[in-house]
Amino acid sequence: MTQHNTSISVCLAERSYDIHIGGGLIENADTFAAPFTADKHLVIITDNNVGPTHGERLEAGLSKSARKIDILHVPAGEASKSLSVYGRLLDDILALGIDRSTMIIAFGGGVIGDLAGYVAASLLRGIDFIQVPTSLLAQVDSSVGGKTGINMSAGKNLVGAFHQPKLVLADTDILGTLPERELRAGYAEIVKYGLLGDATFFEWLEVHGQNVLARDEAAIAYAVQASCRAKADIVAADEREGGVRALLNLGHTFAHAFEAEAGYDGRLLHGEAVGAGIGMAFGFSRHLGLLSGQDEMRVKAHLKALSLPFDRASLPAGNADATRLIQHMYKDKKTHKGALSFILLNAIGSAFVKRNVDEDSLATFLET
Amino acid sequence: MTQHNTSISVCLAERSYDIHIGGGLIENADTFAAPFTADKHLVIITDNNVGPTHGERLEAGLSKSARKIDILHVPAGEASKSLSVYGRLLDDILALGIDRSTMIIAFGGGVIGDLAGYVAASLLRGIDFIQVPTSLLAQVDSSVGGKTGINMSAGKNLVGAFHQPKLVLADTDILGTLPERELRAGYAEIVKYGLLGDATFFEWLEVHGQNVLARDEAAIAYAVQASCRAKADIVAADEREGGVRALLNLGHTFAHAFEAEAGYDGRLLHGEAVGAGIGMAFGFSRHLGLLSGQDEMRVKAHLKALSLPFDRASLPAGNADATRLIQHMYKDKKTHKGALSFILLNAIGSAFVKRNVDEDSLATFLET
Repeated sequence: MTQHNTSISVCLAERSYDIHIGGGLIENADTFAAPFTADKHLVIITDNNVGPTHGERLEAGLSKSARKIDILHVPAGEASKSLSVYGRLLDDILALGIDRSTMIIAFGGGVIGDLAGYVAASLLRGIDFIQVPTSLLAQVDSSVGGKTGINMSAGKNLVGAFHQPKLVLADTDILGTLPERELRAGYAEIVKYGLLGDATFFEWLEVHGQNVLARDEAAIAYAVQASCRAKADIVAADEREGGVRALLNLGHTFAHAFEAEAGYDGRLLHGEAVGAGIGMAFGFSRHLGLLSGQDEMRVKAHLKALSLPFDRASLPAGNADATRLIQHMYKDKKTHKGALSFILLNAIGSAFVKRNVDEDSLATFLET
Repeated sequence: MTQHNTSISVCLAERSYDIHIGGGLIENADTFAAPFTADKHLVIITDNNVGPTHGERLEAGLSKSARKIDILHVPAGEASKSLSVYGRLLDDILALGIDRSTMIIAFGGGVIGDLAGYVAASLLRGIDFIQVPTSLLAQVDSSVGGKTGINMSAGKNLVGAFHQPKLVLADTDILGTLPERELRAGYAEIVKYGLLGDATFFEWLEVHGQNVLARDEAAIAYAVQASCRAKADIVAADEREGGVRALLNLGHTFAHAFEAEAGYDGRLLHGEAVGAGIGMAFGFSRHLGLLSGQDEMRVKAHLKALSLPFDRASLPAGNADATRLIQHMYKDKKTHKGALSFILLNAIGSAFVKRNVDEDSLATFLET
């Protein structure tokens, strides 16, 4: 383990838990996991990229405390976040013979975390689980906060549960083998924290973002910590997204529409869609006269400098018809009594929820 | 509405809700539901027995307050509590166009309540729902307490969520059209409350049980009220079954094994299996020297007098091999660290959790 290791608490009364961030956490998993895994039956859920490469290391890291470890693989990719893969996992895990003390370990990126988390939430009406996120996106966003779920044909994440993990182990060493494209996609969720509430962090990213993408150990550690701290504070303030937590959806209404249009076939990564979605949230805010053109340009310039999508033109399915995109948006979980909601901005670091967004203004914006 | 109408509160802090019991509640649903349904989109989930017979009445009862009402049907019977029917309902409801204010109405027996409740728990990570139980079993047991879920090939209720309803409307008039066999099956859950904690209620049932099954209005109202009050107190004390709530499983470890053996094909109703399971829990308690033979005989005599199953011989699949039954029991949610747990009894009205039940004693009991 390295000097950059840190722990952050997510404070949710009896559902509180710690996020440990740093190097060497996988092979030393027992250091933090033993209080939860000692003498337990563990079921690791992973994908067929992460599992073969890192699965043995995690099993070794957990093997001192656990009573028994099983490992199950699903195909890598968004298509595994489906009802059929969920059903197959439930059957396979039940066939292993489990009880209420069995612990699920989600070992992979955002897809695995959401899927395995929902499996844990559902089995025997809820058993415990631990997140061991292996992608940058999962480490800075999806592994923290208890949102779990699967995609349906009507849209992403439309079925699921709030189910908090007992522990999050974010091993930044594993990012060394993460494909370049996924690293970049994860960065979109990092920049989001700066833009929605912490202009100082965005300024830091303007200087050090390139170092994060170059996998500089200290830069990655700082970016992951700052992101997890921001998310932990927001989740602690609003676990069930009754208020401030909605700000974490910055860029996501646009992003989900493009993802639905692209059909979750791997052409478009979630983080890429979010990058474009963030750029569009800034563009739409300016279109509505809420934001200065200077702030919009500054954000798009940063995304562009890091080779991230920053508008619809830079996306697969980006040329989709405005009417179709708006149809997807109406199916988004964030619509309220049939009206569209967006996270918009007054300035860099200052986001807010805008309800009852006028459909004509949106259509005009999408068509320009 | 009649003089027998009553309300009972389930006290669970911000998840508290009321159970209204009595006649005429369906056609007057708005009287109690309007605070939750006003101006909302409602989706009634029912089965193809209850829906065609009573669906219009419930729609009329809810129509003054609701903005829009959709009604979805599934086949009647335990086979609908499956992952495939759950998935089909999720898709159908999402296709209707919903948001977080959409309200699910579970209108049917225990199968519909468990299934529709799990659908509500899962959609958009949890939307509100109301239970309108139409069977005696659902009115006295499954509609109260927030246990929702589906069956898997490994066993009953192995996948689901704790999701409390906003309201329970138990219209006792509807029991007038309930088939005789289902009425009898529901009675098994009523007698359970007397046996596990309220010997006085069991004495009342010894005198008035026949009147309940004869659909005497006052007797049914009292039996449903006493059962709901007992369940509400237990759920309020232990929502997630960490302790006392487990007592509600009296008879259920045996019952689930027989149901698994019978294959959920309709030959064996849950309440019938519970009747036999209760008789067997008394029998096994006596076999272990925990209970007097007098109490065992008294309980079995009562079940027999009301033509309920009271031992395995009176059940379909009742002659199943002991080894197979024990295998089913190991898959039950109530097993803990690989050891069998049972709800056993010291006396009528005095149940307790017995952990680490010796498998050999159980096998001997099952073989005699």
